[in-house]
Amino acid sequence: MRVLITSGPTREPLDPVRFLTNGSSGRMGIALAEAVLRSGGEAVVVSGPITHQYPTGAEVHRIETTQQMLEKCTELFPSCDGVIGAAAPCDFKPVQYSDQKLTKAESDGELLLRLVPTPDILAGLGRIKKPYQWIVGFALETQHGKEHALEKLHRKNCDFVALNDPSSIDNTQAKLEIFDVHGNRVALLHGMKSDVAAELLKIALRK
Amino acid sequence: MRVLITSGPTREPLDPVRFLTNGSSGRMGIALAEAVLRSGGEAVVVSGPITHQYPTGAEVHRIETTQQMLEKCTELFPSCDGVIGAAAPCDFKPVQYSDQKLTKAESDGELLLRLVPTPDILAGLGRIKKPYQWIVGFALETQHGKEHALEKLHRKNCDFVALNDPSSIDNTQAKLEIFDVHGNRVALLHGMKSDVAAELLKIALRK
Repeated sequence: MRVLITSGPTREPLDPVRFLTNGSSGRMGIALAEAVLRSGGEAVVVSGPITHQYPTGAEVHRIETTQQMLEKCTELFPSCDGVIGAAAPCDFKPVQYSDQKLTKAESDGELLLRLVPTPDILAGLGRIKKPYQWIVGFALETQHGKEHALEKLHRKNCDFVALNDPSSIDNTQAKLEIFDVHGNRVALLHGMKSDVAAELLKIALRK
Repeated sequence: MRVLITSGPTREPLDPVRFLTNGSSGRMGIALAEAVLRSGGEAVVVSGPITHQYPTGAEVHRIETTQQMLEKCTELFPSCDGVIGAAAPCDFKPVQYSDQKLTKAESDGELLLRLVPTPDILAGLGRIKKPYQWIVGFALETQHGKEHALEKLHRKNCDFVALNDPSSIDNTQAKLEIFDVHGNRVALLHGMKSDVAAELLKIALRK
């Protein structure tokens, strides 16, 4: 069993100093990599910049932007049995990147930043998924949770989607509601990310 | 001797998940706090979110945004002999904050983000500086380094300014050019942040 795990945030730079991101710590990705290794599988991690350590034995690929995460995952997914999309990729990026640091003086007050959506990583993998492969998506929502989560599940060709909320970000605990393709809630996982990750992996392998 | 140190990045949120920030690790602030403590002084740190640890004995105040950093520093500066502005505060923030996570579906493609400058922390402290107090600013520049650094020194009422470039961000080493109010380069410090911090503190205390 070879499992691809996306983990951590991505960064979308405005200039050599500033970027758009989120507070993802990569702890869920670390916990999932540990769960895969404990079960005897190979953990292949594509990770944005985080300061915590992945377990020894995991195959870790470091990237910065969402586009880079997509490219690396597209390259690695065909050799894996499934993917768990635990990363929090930045889903907007500045249209323009400034080679030089934007300064207050130059910008003369207000700055108008045009953002465009970044490519959707799991949707990209969903399009090349083989019948034997499985995909578990994550949906982090602040409203209409189940509805948004199931929309994502179908659009991204996932087998399961794990719904959570911003309280899970940079937390040692997680609370996940797991839905299947029929819209059934197959589990409510609540506790330390290490325990939640182990349960989530079991569910993924049911497919 | 009681020294105020600003440290780390700040975050400017768009919504409950996304924010604008930079890659500052807080390592220079940590090194400065250690240098102050080693010299027998009190280290008062106002820090944005970082994962590295401040030394035991430092008085650490945690904040998230630039406005919060300004407020905390304005409160603490009158009780200090000087301040070293080693933080990398985010100097633009979104005009609007969305209570709910902005979604790709709702935003229908492009998102226009209006950013306004955040308050300048050291300039704020420069306005309330007493004659016995000193201020060391940092300037992180990608072009016109000395010119921009000296403009900042004067506008912020600093006694010294430390010029560096993006290579210092999230690095264990630093390379700083130190300029005084006359525009003279009084030092070039290059090496481990712990050594650079100790030298920078000595220069600050010359005032």
